[in-house]
Amino acid sequence: MIAQDAPGQTTPGQDERYREKMRKRKAAQDLEVASKTIEKGLLIVHTGRGKGKSTAAFGLLLRALGHNWRVGVVQFIKGAWSTGERDVLEARFADLVSWHTMGEGFTWETQDRARDVAAAEAAWAKAKALLDDPGIKLVILDELNVALRYDYVPIDDVVATLMQRRPGLHVVVTGRNAPPALIEAADLVTEMTPVKHHFEAGVKAQAGIEF
Amino acid sequence: MIAQDAPGQTTPGQDERYREKMRKRKAAQDLEVASKTIEKGLLIVHTGRGKGKSTAAFGLLLRALGHNWRVGVVQFIKGAWSTGERDVLEARFADLVSWHTMGEGFTWETQDRARDVAAAEAAWAKAKALLDDPGIKLVILDELNVALRYDYVPIDDVVATLMQRRPGLHVVVTGRNAPPALIEAADLVTEMTPVKHHFEAGVKAQAGIEF
Repeated sequence: MIAQDAPGQTTPGQDERYREKMRKRKAAQDLEVASKTIEKGLLIVHTGRGKGKSTAAFGLLLRALGHNWRVGVVQFIKGAWSTGERDVLEARFADLVSWHTMGEGFTWETQDRARDVAAAEAAWAKAKALLDDPGIKLVILDELNVALRYDYVPIDDVVATLMQRRPGLHVVVTGRNAPPALIEAADLVTEMTPVKHHFEAGVKAQAGIEF
Repeated sequence: MIAQDAPGQTTPGQDERYREKMRKRKAAQDLEVASKTIEKGLLIVHTGRGKGKSTAAFGLLLRALGHNWRVGVVQFIKGAWSTGERDVLEARFADLVSWHTMGEGFTWETQDRARDVAAAEAAWAKAKALLDDPGIKLVILDELNVALRYDYVPIDDVVATLMQRRPGLHVVVTGRNAPPALIEAADLVTEMTPVKHHFEAGVKAQAGIEF
């Protein structure tokens, strides 16, 4: 029987090797942690074709609530339907969360460019107001990348405004196809990549998972 | 001046092309949506070296709370420190969230394989109890992939147990290096890929972002 196949059972030699390996790893890790000293508000971008871009932003929002932060959310595209996260935040955290669903639904639902542009411009004006609110510590600009891709709002203004934000303010921008200028300006960029998707197996969008 | 550079301004021709493009896109989208008819509890895996794996799981948890679901969480590795999400859920959603932080910290902190294995086995026993609880609709097994990678719990038992779960029960497994057998069994797998990380620029782990 190979030792690795027997969880819970360790030999003295295996145990010592494990301890030595982890001791080295801890030393490296401690050095690594000690080398990071800067505190700053981060510009965070979640992009890519995979799921989890908005969901991870709302996970950060939940974490922020645990620190009693005030948080602002602007949704640039979504709008036509209710979501679980919005419902629970409006019902239970209205004191901490300023939530603005400004989109009119997916771009292919409205089929009217002038209307889409007007909605995105109103969303961006709301975003600027939240960025200027000194009581807010985290601003989520959900699907802003989509509005940028369709040129609904000007990328130069967005990047300049985000770069000039208050020190300490964290901002999360989500959506596919993050523009290069935004990635360049960001502190943390994660790409969500689909490996396998249940829609391809005929499973529909379900409450609690997709909305 | 190029029309695309002028958000908010559209010419009649551009507007018509836009409408036509979006009309086609909506038709394709409607067909696509109509073709998905299956409802089922999903086995979801968040893996990869990037950030957002656990955070997206907790974003799903927030969404689930909006649908008034009961949710179970087992943390296999993390444990030694408090996090914002845990604090707020224990304070405000104790009725809906059954939260179990069973790890003893990162593996390189304990430096004791037998202790790590014992902690992971206890976590897996707790996970099985949550999977068997008919009132729970979502179970998050945070960092289970790490416990699988170090052989703290047997992959065969984990995959068999997850495959045999109640219909309708959603499960999210997080952590780097998801094993191939788990990916094979899953309905939805997303890889979080780091594009840019603020730790590399000397920024430290900060409240509200990392914990």
